[in-house]
Amino acid sequence: MWNRGRKPRFHYICTLFLFTPMKISNRAEIMPSSPIRKLSGIAQKIEAQGVKVYHLNIGQPDLPTPQIGLDALKNIDRQVLEYTPSQGFLSLRKKLCDYYEQYQIKFSPDDIIVTSGGSEAVLFAFMTCLNPGDEIIVPEPAYANYMAFAVSAGAVIKPIVSTIEDGFALPPVEKFEELITERTKGILICNPNNPTGYLYTRKEMLQLRDLVKKYDLYLFSDEVYREFIYTGSPYISACHLEGIENNVILIDSVSKRYSECGIRIGAIATKNEDVRKAVMKFCQARLCPPLIGQVIAEASISAPRDYMANTYEEFITRRKYLIDGLNKIPCVYSPIPMGAFYTTAQLPIDDCEDFCKWCLTDFRRDGKTIMMAPGTGFYSDPSHGRNQVRLAYVLNIEDLKDALKLLAQALEEYNSLKKK
Amino acid sequence: MWNRGRKPRFHYICTLFLFTPMKISNRAEIMPSSPIRKLSGIAQKIEAQGVKVYHLNIGQPDLPTPQIGLDALKNIDRQVLEYTPSQGFLSLRKKLCDYYEQYQIKFSPDDIIVTSGGSEAVLFAFMTCLNPGDEIIVPEPAYANYMAFAVSAGAVIKPIVSTIEDGFALPPVEKFEELITERTKGILICNPNNPTGYLYTRKEMLQLRDLVKKYDLYLFSDEVYREFIYTGSPYISACHLEGIENNVILIDSVSKRYSECGIRIGAIATKNEDVRKAVMKFCQARLCPPLIGQVIAEASISAPRDYMANTYEEFITRRKYLIDGLNKIPCVYSPIPMGAFYTTAQLPIDDCEDFCKWCLTDFRRDGKTIMMAPGTGFYSDPSHGRNQVRLAYVLNIEDLKDALKLLAQALEEYNSLKKK
Repeated sequence: MWNRGRKPRFHYICTLFLFTPMKISNRAEIMPSSPIRKLSGIAQKIEAQGVKVYHLNIGQPDLPTPQIGLDALKNIDRQVLEYTPSQGFLSLRKKLCDYYEQYQIKFSPDDIIVTSGGSEAVLFAFMTCLNPGDEIIVPEPAYANYMAFAVSAGAVIKPIVSTIEDGFALPPVEKFEELITERTKGILICNPNNPTGYLYTRKEMLQLRDLVKKYDLYLFSDEVYREFIYTGSPYISACHLEGIENNVILIDSVSKRYSECGIRIGAIATKNEDVRKAVMKFCQARLCPPLIGQVIAEASISAPRDYMANTYEEFITRRKYLIDGLNKIPCVYSPIPMGAFYTTAQLPIDDCEDFCKWCLTDFRRDGKTIMMAPGTGFYSDPSHGRNQVRLAYVLNIEDLKDALKLLAQALEEYNSLKKK
Repeated sequence: MWNRGRKPRFHYICTLFLFTPMKISNRAEIMPSSPIRKLSGIAQKIEAQGVKVYHLNIGQPDLPTPQIGLDALKNIDRQVLEYTPSQGFLSLRKKLCDYYEQYQIKFSPDDIIVTSGGSEAVLFAFMTCLNPGDEIIVPEPAYANYMAFAVSAGAVIKPIVSTIEDGFALPPVEKFEELITERTKGILICNPNNPTGYLYTRKEMLQLRDLVKKYDLYLFSDEVYREFIYTGSPYISACHLEGIENNVILIDSVSKRYSECGIRIGAIATKNEDVRKAVMKFCQARLCPPLIGQVIAEASISAPRDYMANTYEEFITRRKYLIDGLNKIPCVYSPIPMGAFYTTAQLPIDDCEDFCKWCLTDFRRDGKTIMMAPGTGFYSDPSHGRNQVRLAYVLNIEDLKDALKLLAQALEEYNSLKKK
């Protein structure tokens, strides 16, 4: 059946065994399901049956998109919804430069590549910078999809675990150095952090800089939550760090700051020209980021100060409400997140996957239940985070109140069933 | 400098040499630039200087998006532009089923996964089905970005070259069989074909089916131009072929049929549940396809018969005009494309890259010039297609007329300069 022009060798024998036709790829096999979305099927099903589900699982704020963005959408007056430049509209990239300027981050429009969401930015950054087998060090718990994008690139995430006891602070720099091998190509941080809300201190950022410089590593820095810092602590961007300008790959997205996750507009920004040129080849292959999303994003950057201030105040209130509420539930503990709009909390359970699923399949109060993201999904090693869940405080206070009550009741019921 | 916990071995020494930190990945190095877009930078520059460029390089029709799609855009009345399901809206997937029904293709909404353009559909199909080193056979000339997506997945395209003399018909099935090795995982076709306009005959499709069945291969079938078949010949979809239902992965996009390339909505459709489940993991990682694009696509599927008929008639006229015009230019030859809206033509030149670039940098008539896609970019082996260009007949007759005149003049001037 096979054309065996070449002499069969050991690895071909393996190949025949492992790589038979019509099998899905190894990367697809090991690709993790999103902990945030993998229960979505069940949720959709019970919602269709009329169950009210409070979505604490997903970082989709219920806050409105800025009116100026919605107006831009209404005012689109094009007869042909055509391709845009692969790099994204120049006008959008210029506006992004002005935006970064407010944070003392200097980019020129050429430094910026518009992507289909922050997701594509991470994927293309990894595809461009990492060979199969290359390693990146990622503090965990971490945004689960980094793992998926690493798998897509064949790269290996070397986790460095931060703990809830330390409020998810960065582990000491020596711990990072222990992980560095000849295959280490970079470090990835998310700051402010998803899923913990932790904000890296100046001291931590300077330590990271020194490490990146010493080993000449890439520093992938996902800063999509920079608007949401609640403690008065300074926001130290990777782009502020001197001496590693060429190492930093900024990952960004308009999704969170303007509550427009569905328009799929993100960006890669870097001073590293080699990286940009290579990323552009991936961008040209996928033709362009969404036209209409770009129009909305560009307008949204001009959202009035009021909009941003109101959003910020709302999250401050929600954060306080959620964290206070969580810590009042017996045996539940959440550190106080300094930024973003998530917290990773510890619950009196030992199998968060089972508990989160059970909330959807079995638990109801007045036809309502809650959906959370199981903590295990944010660690490479699924033995971690088994008693943790990620909660997004993206719902209004009334809903949060109800959700907290449901969580307390669910824990009680679940644990009493377990004891039986 | 390195933590050498492990004993250095030969492949690590290689590694140190080949994979130094802060180098872009091998895949990014070998990733081809898009032949369709790589001259875009020059074009943008001269357009900014006031030069009129006729874009024959890109498959972006100048025809309007259906009014019903534009109306749907105007009527979006959402306050939050939120994430959608990773698989795409159910309502859109249902509409797509009705649409396929018209072509005697039976899919259920579960069989369909909405993607960010056909591009993402190809990328995810390859990522899901192909391991690094796996091979797919692709008739060439081929849409250049297949190569880019294969590189992204680490897969290898084994080209099978069709010739302009044969009107780009499929090479005999024996030629395919010669290419099959133990690493062959699939065959990819684009039908009607981009960049040649060739439409596979029933006989050819049945031969492909037999081959796919015999070797249990995937058949990736890109059919985004199915609306554009001009010869009265039947459209034989890969989905019509009996006995290989589980092997076929349909790649689709609304971009071309509704002239809405910028909304970035495509789809993967397959009866193969394993593939769908695995593709969904990639889909969840990137969260969702564009919200607004989905709304427009869903509405556009209901475009009135008139819209489709007018579009079709327009392309018939343009095709005739372009092909007749090309074949009247001395030493230029184009076969008559049966479908899509491209032709691959042969010009009296021996370096199409140089000629296409020269048209942008040096050639002007009344402040105007033409942009074409160099033929070499549609072949894996750049020694092929050196005297070919791909032309898209996406401009109106007046513009095509002017563009043809410019092409004739450009060829004359270029060749007379060459002789000096």
